[in-house]
Amino acid sequence: MNLEGHLSSPRSAWTSGGGEMSDVVVSSRARLARNLDGYPFPEHLQPDPGEQVVQRVQGAVTGLGRGWEFYRLQGLSAVDRQVLLEKHLISPQQAQSPDRAALALREDEALSVMVNEEDHLRVQAILPGLAVGHALRLALETDDRLEQNLDFAFTPDRGYLTACPTNVGTGLRLSVMLHLGGLARTQRIQQLLQVLPKLGLAVRGLYGEGTEAIGNLFQISNQITLGQTEEEVAGGIERAALEVIEQERQARRLLAENALPEVQDRVHRAYGILRYARLLGAEEAMHLLSDLRLGTEMGLLQVPLPMVNELLLLALPGFLSRTVGHELQPAEQRAARANLIRERLQKEVG
Amino acid sequence: MNLEGHLSSPRSAWTSGGGEMSDVVVSSRARLARNLDGYPFPEHLQPDPGEQVVQRVQGAVTGLGRGWEFYRLQGLSAVDRQVLLEKHLISPQQAQSPDRAALALREDEALSVMVNEEDHLRVQAILPGLAVGHALRLALETDDRLEQNLDFAFTPDRGYLTACPTNVGTGLRLSVMLHLGGLARTQRIQQLLQVLPKLGLAVRGLYGEGTEAIGNLFQISNQITLGQTEEEVAGGIERAALEVIEQERQARRLLAENALPEVQDRVHRAYGILRYARLLGAEEAMHLLSDLRLGTEMGLLQVPLPMVNELLLLALPGFLSRTVGHELQPAEQRAARANLIRERLQKEVG
Repeated sequence: MNLEGHLSSPRSAWTSGGGEMSDVVVSSRARLARNLDGYPFPEHLQPDPGEQVVQRVQGAVTGLGRGWEFYRLQGLSAVDRQVLLEKHLISPQQAQSPDRAALALREDEALSVMVNEEDHLRVQAILPGLAVGHALRLALETDDRLEQNLDFAFTPDRGYLTACPTNVGTGLRLSVMLHLGGLARTQRIQQLLQVLPKLGLAVRGLYGEGTEAIGNLFQISNQITLGQTEEEVAGGIERAALEVIEQERQARRLLAENALPEVQDRVHRAYGILRYARLLGAEEAMHLLSDLRLGTEMGLLQVPLPMVNELLLLALPGFLSRTVGHELQPAEQRAARANLIRERLQKEVG
Repeated sequence: MNLEGHLSSPRSAWTSGGGEMSDVVVSSRARLARNLDGYPFPEHLQPDPGEQVVQRVQGAVTGLGRGWEFYRLQGLSAVDRQVLLEKHLISPQQAQSPDRAALALREDEALSVMVNEEDHLRVQAILPGLAVGHALRLALETDDRLEQNLDFAFTPDRGYLTACPTNVGTGLRLSVMLHLGGLARTQRIQQLLQVLPKLGLAVRGLYGEGTEAIGNLFQISNQITLGQTEEEVAGGIERAALEVIEQERQARRLLAENALPEVQDRVHRAYGILRYARLLGAEEAMHLLSDLRLGTEMGLLQVPLPMVNELLLLALPGFLSRTVGHELQPAEQRAARANLIRERLQKEVG
């Protein structure tokens, strides 16, 4: 697949709707921060050595073998960078400052390496469902193979050195994206959000740090990267995720027992509005897609999860602009969003 | 058709969606109040003479010929009386106090006579669209034929005597039911509602005096029954209706020019919700049906007006209870209303 293929399709490894616990877990992600020895961190990197970093990583990525491609972000349009961001393949920083930023991507988008983000390299694995351990292994494997050709900044006492001290040590951030539609609707989500940070876990929205939880999608990740092995971190995240999953399932059981007609009504209305509306704001679309997702997860609706994931991506500004063919004003986005979602549902659900 | 036929079908003469100006006018109605000479008005009528009134009217109705049926309300269930009320065939008073109340009905429901309502007889004609003159002629013809067998209370100086002084004279009330969805959405309806009473016209809701305008349906009727001929009253109502129709059409043109995407969105959302919701309150259903009606009237939707009229009737408590087979609690009504509307739209629009 060439870059155009990645940019034009709302499919990604994590959108398949499969994997373990996929009734609650959208995706699991492992990310390793690495820096080349002998170069300043990207923030302090001059153009020339910055270019050297890109070229050295590009060389190492070639060693990863077939199925890997290397793309510089500099030549891409703002819309294309936005699409890569919406697919979680590059970071907001990279999208905003594409100079000397690059992306190495495996064909299925499950594995990628961001180049000259906050750190020189961020190796990332994203898989559908609860697959923290698997994502970690994939990322570590890729990291090992890159390390055969690259010299990473590392000290025995501190581990891998990173631009931000919160990543020093393993450089590992593991996260699980959960759809907590049941907890949100039973007003029990606030309590949960207050408990998790006390367990050393961060709770974030769909697009990471500083983003709000839209469409009841919450990302739970580790805050500690020093003093724990990768496997200990993975075990902690997995245990926390399983606990949250159980609470979410319990909330859904409660809804099914005590408020089934209301939930049925809500999820079918969401379908009816998405299927017929001519204007849809971003926030409303996310709420409706959350209702749709809950309906599918609870077995009340026949809309497949992969389609809900793809609709979520299609509803975002980058994908909208790309589909229409030019950058859209906010007012145009509402019509384009409604059209895209409506046509997709009409075609594939009827 | 027997009574069961009238009770089980949401079709009536006025639901056909046809007639003049049917993009704004739902129906036109003429009603003549008449009382038998020598009997107290119904409010003061004892059981025995009350029964005589019923029998005398029944005898006279026989003279109206084929297609007419005579039904006593006393034996009917509360739900059945509610259905007749919802079809505008009996009055709220008759529905509540069915003793010695009766209904003479022509098969097509365009003509009827309420017996022992506020007056002994109320001859009524309802037609679809703007048809004030035609409705008046039908009612007067029926009145003439009844008068061949009945002796009405009448004095040369005051005309027909009626229980309420506001009806004395011609005993005529002419009304036009208008759907003012455009004026409601351009915030110009309040102004109109303040002007009409100054022209001697009353503005009421779907179910007459004391009812609110639900679903943007407004009934305009004459307030004066003394000192004007029937034809003068009809002319006044028709002129007023034409003026309101023009204002409503202008409001719709403005909407189409300045806010077409928003109107398109609104009417299609209404369809989507009606087509998929599992619970629908009465007020919400009326609002959504008004949006649906506006969409059809403006040519934006392919839902036929007769169906909108029938859905309006089906959404009312009497029809709901009748369709389900027993009287419904308010909470049950919401599910029954959503089911009925959804199934009808699914079957006939798809």
